Amino acid sequence: MSDPNPLPSWVDGPNKSAILDFVARVTNEDDPHFRPAAERIATFDNDGTLWCEFPNLVQVLFTLAEVKRLTSQRPELLNKPAYKAFLAGDLKTLASLPRQDVFETIFAVHAGMSVDDFEVTVAEWFSSARHPTLGRLVLNNAYQPQQDLLAYLRANEFKTFIVTGGGVEFVRVISQRLYAIPAEQVIGSSTKCHLNTIDGNLVLRKLPDLGSFDDRDEKVVNIGLHLGRRPIFAFGNSDGDLSMLRYTLQGDGARLGLLLHHDDAAREFAYDRDFKISPLSDGLEHADAYGIRVVSMKSDWRSVFSFASA
Amino acid sequence: MSDPNPLPSWVDGPNKSAILDFVARVTNEDDPHFRPAAERIATFDNDGTLWCEFPNLVQVLFTLAEVKRLTSQRPELLNKPAYKAFLAGDLKTLASLPRQDVFETIFAVHAGMSVDDFEVTVAEWFSSARHPTLGRLVLNNAYQPQQDLLAYLRANEFKTFIVTGGGVEFVRVISQRLYAIPAEQVIGSSTKCHLNTIDGNLVLRKLPDLGSFDDRDEKVVNIGLHLGRRPIFAFGNSDGDLSMLRYTLQGDGARLGLLLHHDDAAREFAYDRDFKISPLSDGLEHADAYGIRVVSMKSDWRSVFSFASA
Repeated sequence: MSDPNPLPSWVDGPNKSAILDFVARVTNEDDPHFRPAAERIATFDNDGTLWCEFPNLVQVLFTLAEVKRLTSQRPELLNKPAYKAFLAGDLKTLASLPRQDVFETIFAVHAGMSVDDFEVTVAEWFSSARHPTLGRLVLNNAYQPQQDLLAYLRANEFKTFIVTGGGVEFVRVISQRLYAIPAEQVIGSSTKCHLNTIDGNLVLRKLPDLGSFDDRDEKVVNIGLHLGRRPIFAFGNSDGDLSMLRYTLQGDGARLGLLLHHDDAAREFAYDRDFKISPLSDGLEHADAYGIRVVSMKSDWRSVFSFASA
Repeated sequence: MSDPNPLPSWVDGPNKSAILDFVARVTNEDDPHFRPAAERIATFDNDGTLWCEFPNLVQVLFTLAEVKRLTSQRPELLNKPAYKAFLAGDLKTLASLPRQDVFETIFAVHAGMSVDDFEVTVAEWFSSARHPTLGRLVLNNAYQPQQDLLAYLRANEFKTFIVTGGGVEFVRVISQRLYAIPAEQVIGSSTKCHLNTIDGNLVLRKLPDLGSFDDRDEKVVNIGLHLGRRPIFAFGNSDGDLSMLRYTLQGDGARLGLLLHHDDAAREFAYDRDFKISPLSDGLEHADAYGIRVVSMKSDWRSVFSFASA
């Protein structure tokens, strides 16, 4: 059963050991921290945790392309600073605006579109979308060590979930392909939707109103709504993930909470406190107090990007 | 692989054949209607579809007990007719009120309680709660033919979900035990929740406000939010399930939608149009037009109740 070389893309060291030890304990029936498979719930943030989010969120890049296409249909959106920045293609301003302002704009852009059409639009965009500075397809920006970790957890009968600030329908388009996580195991931000009946045909459409901004405390609220269980493992990379990590760690028995620190300017990017849309500040300061392990991209990861996915 | 005697509690006939034929087609790689396992999503209503809902919903019985216990804490609720009826133990009035009025009261009763405490409260109640006329434990009121059907679908690599008007946290307490459906595969009505931090301790609490009343069109909206895919199989028993059934049937390829008709006064109950809290009227009238198969409890089921669960 057990893989002779688990997590090959992780460097041997305290963080890799902590993961291996945790999984060994919760899967060993003779260990007091054993958990039946049904309770082995692992939640992962997406942006900056499973794939590259710097210098702009992938969904910002998508929205940028879409705003140009859809401008004429929704002129009222032009009043918002984030929308103006989208329209001007002003990536620097977008990276400096508060997270919720940017997300609200992102979610409003596709109001009126059916969820089926939205899925097709997103899939088409991904087929050719490239990272603004790395040049390669954004589909090539998923992290190999996380793909290995997800596979390792699943091999040990964990059920893996994404809990993302990104739009739930957006992330579902690539979750199976990049992470082998099915659509129904993605929890995310969402617009409200409405079921229209036109000539007897039922069409589910996106509304302009935000349903849930799945960030900070709301990640825990949505874990309650969608899972109804406390995870025993959680992985994030920003202060927006701290509530999820702390909630995970405060349950009984063995728990593991990890924060990825982007400290690798050579292979990816080095950023934390000053990245407005996804800052890591409280997390670095209080990780010890919260019992969270900080993972260094530079020291803990043997490789960074997966190129097998695109 | 294939079971020599699938669905033993179903009577041989057109409905059983329709189920067997549908499953045979979508699981046969040589059939044009073949579906990969990931797309084999089956959704079931709960009340009246998976267990007995007559003459009162199980959650009404639970709320009746809880209202007595919690009255002193929330006197403002006494203004609502449904709440007065709960307090008086007036099951007849409760069965005659509009569905949403009853549910709103049900969901408001536990405002302020943590979701963890709520789960314990529900589990304790189920350990001794009995059906008001059948006398036996409500846990003995799940339908054997549906347990067989759920198991048969899963044996054919379907993923089975509950999509219920009942409270999501309420149904999750018994979903694994009665239907082998894990908590995270239950979609239901919900109150809003809030994450409180008290002395560094994160507690998820129920608020009095309704988050979602998972009935009629809202079932489809929640399927979009939670699953992000259109089911290929759906089973309900009331007009509240028609949108889910029609949405399921309007997708491409082979689909199956079923409505259980409670026409068995001898073994369970006979009711449809006049049961206010869960009427079946439009469904009976338009089933053919919608392509929905009506299942007769009396004629299609060899047995009704499962007694193995309690």
